Amino acid sequence: MTIETVSENKARGGVQGVYSHASKETGTEMTFSVYVPPREEGATLPVLWYLSGLTCTHANVAEKGEYRQACAEHGMIFVAPDTSPRGDDVPDAADEYDFGKGAGFYVDAVREPWCKHYRMRSYIERELPDVLERHFPADMARQSIMGHSMGGHGALTIGLRNPERFKSISAFSPIVAPSQVPWGEKALGRYLGEDRDAWREYDAVALIEDGARHDHLLVDQGSADQFLDEQLRTHRLGGACDANGMEATIRMQEGYDHSYYFISTFMAEHVAWHAGRLG
Amino acid sequence: MTIETVSENKARGGVQGVYSHASKETGTEMTFSVYVPPREEGATLPVLWYLSGLTCTHANVAEKGEYRQACAEHGMIFVAPDTSPRGDDVPDAADEYDFGKGAGFYVDAVREPWCKHYRMRSYIERELPDVLERHFPADMARQSIMGHSMGGHGALTIGLRNPERFKSISAFSPIVAPSQVPWGEKALGRYLGEDRDAWREYDAVALIEDGARHDHLLVDQGSADQFLDEQLRTHRLGGACDANGMEATIRMQEGYDHSYYFISTFMAEHVAWHAGRLG
Repeated sequence: MTIETVSENKARGGVQGVYSHASKETGTEMTFSVYVPPREEGATLPVLWYLSGLTCTHANVAEKGEYRQACAEHGMIFVAPDTSPRGDDVPDAADEYDFGKGAGFYVDAVREPWCKHYRMRSYIERELPDVLERHFPADMARQSIMGHSMGGHGALTIGLRNPERFKSISAFSPIVAPSQVPWGEKALGRYLGEDRDAWREYDAVALIEDGARHDHLLVDQGSADQFLDEQLRTHRLGGACDANGMEATIRMQEGYDHSYYFISTFMAEHVAWHAGRLG
Repeated sequence: MTIETVSENKARGGVQGVYSHASKETGTEMTFSVYVPPREEGATLPVLWYLSGLTCTHANVAEKGEYRQACAEHGMIFVAPDTSPRGDDVPDAADEYDFGKGAGFYVDAVREPWCKHYRMRSYIERELPDVLERHFPADMARQSIMGHSMGGHGALTIGLRNPERFKSISAFSPIVAPSQVPWGEKALGRYLGEDRDAWREYDAVALIEDGARHDHLLVDQGSADQFLDEQLRTHRLGGACDANGMEATIRMQEGYDHSYYFISTFMAEHVAWHAGRLG
């Protein structure tokens, strides 16, 4: 389980790195970024996972997310995986930004030809944590997870399925009910097949309906988000929480859109919120 | 003097915009970005100019510079112009990243074929300020200027030539003496011709030797910058200041390189420093 260093840059007193490794889950070379803030020698630090949205790689949030100051202040490692397997051998959907490469939807695909490489659930839940624990000063007993859009969906579903592992979950502009919106129906249908019962573990609203709970959930959604009405439908998450007795903080942020200008505005607040729950 | 809105995104309570206009100086369509922080209705705000480095456009610092929080806190407008004229009609140097498009060096070229469009000095010093004053809530009596690398050279030379207009000057990793380094010798020679006396108004060290002064100058330079020894040679700026009785704060930042990971680390500090001098 070796990793290659793609780049390392000093930033806010720590190191912003990009690394790659041969993934067993995806059968491909996978790239991810890790920010390790300044720390005392030998110290391990809590880990904040960030899952990115459609079309993104590990790089978008590292360049535009404005998380490093807050992570340095709170002493948190920030990890950003890629959003799908990559490479010439990986099947793709040409000209579709919302399926295939860049659109792994954090599922383990079961249908051909996707099932061989599109295993982002197991990659994020099992393989990359092992890499992180082995190669970085990470305190794996203290992890939280967040994400944006498709990555918000990933953070919500992975967090709700693993509440003991992730002390807190937050999301910007998440797809809260992929089973009920075009992006999700397309992706889950093609990765998983037409049996909609099999989609429920990849749908935050369905997970809550089916009994999943988390005590620390924060969502920020921009009111001017061009995808709000058709794809995100944040109110369904609030409805599911209300109907099932789960507390959550779901905030509509007036005038903000779907971009990293929104994310970077509230990123420091999210990092601080997670830090408060990670102790 | 109309401008077109390319995009506007709410960010940190203000608006991060990208605009374009037909420039008389360059004879081309020019694109620039402006961040206007939240403000009281009718209020005008001081202006911080940011000049970018080789290969950059208006976009790099808007995406990676992490200035908006500090500008919102201090109530400052942040303006980032492009680094050269653009378009199919503009002569370029194919395969040269350090000359032609993306490498205007903030000069008014006098040699053919560059002199028709490559007029970034007059564009920054005269034309864009008029655009800014007309279309944005800018207090033009309170301006400061900063930049990175080639843009640090631009900020130093424009600021030193116009000390009454710019209350303070700062730079990350600037080219301090272009007349004495490969990047600068190539660009100034081709834009201006071989008479090196004509280069001196585009060389910060030469300007100081020739009597230019500014009371508020701050430079941050990374010690691990791959261009430090050959292209930047920061010590020559300190030497010129010492020899000519000019005070300046020139800091070597241990372990930082030439990237936006360095810039974003110290950006908030620079914005605050300018704010203190803009009153």
